[in-house]
Amino acid sequence: MKLYIIKIGGNIIDKEEDLNTFLKKFAAIEGKKILVHGGGKMATKIAEALNIPQKMLDGRRITDAETLKLVTMVYAGLINKTIVSLLQKFECNAIGLSGADGNAIQAKKREKGNIDYGFAGDIEKINTGLLKDLIEKGLVPVLAPITHNRDGQLLNTNADTIAGETAITLSEYFDVSLIYGFEKAGVLKDAADENSVISKLNPVLYSQYKNEKIITEGLIPKLDNAFSALEKGVKKVIIGKALEPEDLIEGRTGTTISTE
Amino acid sequence: MKLYIIKIGGNIIDKEEDLNTFLKKFAAIEGKKILVHGGGKMATKIAEALNIPQKMLDGRRITDAETLKLVTMVYAGLINKTIVSLLQKFECNAIGLSGADGNAIQAKKREKGNIDYGFAGDIEKINTGLLKDLIEKGLVPVLAPITHNRDGQLLNTNADTIAGETAITLSEYFDVSLIYGFEKAGVLKDAADENSVISKLNPVLYSQYKNEKIITEGLIPKLDNAFSALEKGVKKVIIGKALEPEDLIEGRTGTTISTE
Repeated sequence: MKLYIIKIGGNIIDKEEDLNTFLKKFAAIEGKKILVHGGGKMATKIAEALNIPQKMLDGRRITDAETLKLVTMVYAGLINKTIVSLLQKFECNAIGLSGADGNAIQAKKREKGNIDYGFAGDIEKINTGLLKDLIEKGLVPVLAPITHNRDGQLLNTNADTIAGETAITLSEYFDVSLIYGFEKAGVLKDAADENSVISKLNPVLYSQYKNEKIITEGLIPKLDNAFSALEKGVKKVIIGKALEPEDLIEGRTGTTISTE
Repeated sequence: MKLYIIKIGGNIIDKEEDLNTFLKKFAAIEGKKILVHGGGKMATKIAEALNIPQKMLDGRRITDAETLKLVTMVYAGLINKTIVSLLQKFECNAIGLSGADGNAIQAKKREKGNIDYGFAGDIEKINTGLLKDLIEKGLVPVLAPITHNRDGQLLNTNADTIAGETAITLSEYFDVSLIYGFEKAGVLKDAADENSVISKLNPVLYSQYKNEKIITEGLIPKLDNAFSALEKGVKKVIIGKALEPEDLIEGRTGTTISTE
């Protein structure tokens, strides 16, 4: 049985109209599905209003105790419940979950290395039983990027990683397509040209494009993760414009990444 | 089969130590259970920091658009997930839900009368199928006081009412005890004396105490609701100190309200 796991980020969440458009299309996708959402600028705005100084490092938020409260409020509260109520409007029986809910995602606090990320969580275990059960009941899990360590500590966790790990674990039971929605039309041959989408990518082509410097640093971690998910059982990974989920699923747009 | 529905309010939620103590005891209660939580002062504090003016009327918050975002963040995000992660620590498999999640609680926006309460929701329908199913799987629903109208609108909803209505609807399947935890030891004969708890209350005694002005205005709406819940199938309603949930359940403390 097919399962679509779609991840959206701040670029969609921050614009009310885009979020509406996306959710309407997401709701219309037939079959079993999970939505994973990130945070977006809302948290930064509210942090400013609350005078919680935000530290970013390599695009990652340093999560001190006050910031953890903030992201718990904004991600697991405002964003998650706004998405769920809109999906309900579009007749999609969504259920919002943080990693603490039903012990959906257990993580451990990232150890201090050169950088102390604070209350950042690295995933240890996905509760496949819970997710499988909800999905089979016709519910659509909407995962917020907040997890817990099962010892009473909530943790801020990267949404891309949640989507990837969830896809890998659920491949035991489903034919999983993992869709990363972002602002671009896909992996581009020419960063300046939205029409230069590479529609198919496999390990051979990927090496070739890297050698030719067509695919460069920015996308490499995302693509490495994608290939790693494929090796661990995920059927397909698709990267493309979040506003066009059906087109991505059908392979009409975006970059489809596979092992073949 | 027995089901305990326990409601806690701001007095417990606002104090980290009390919340911990309560949740540890709640987790230890054997059998099936649901926790319903209110809001507390945290929302008011954050509203001040964010410069969202708060209007209260007869102890009820007027929920304008900005306040709705605030309570969604604080109630369904921060408070709900903090509670769930602590319950997970105490080996209680909690799952936090707003009314939008799985369409758990559908409400309608309160109509403007003399007062415009804004985005306040009056409950229309509890999704007993969902709650029953989660409970039977061993999960413990933790309900936040946020509902939705199934048309994309989240609504601020009174937690006492959520507890009462949930208790009534679930009495079709369970022997429900509804426990209202508050700051006092129970219904008191003498408001100044915490040792003057009326341990049992039935309709005859209730009329008598009202006639004798022993029970006065403040508690009458709560008690009227309690008797109404009993008439609609709830087995027992107990009012008392939230910090002592097992003692309340066993009738060792608090006021037990029944029809007999």
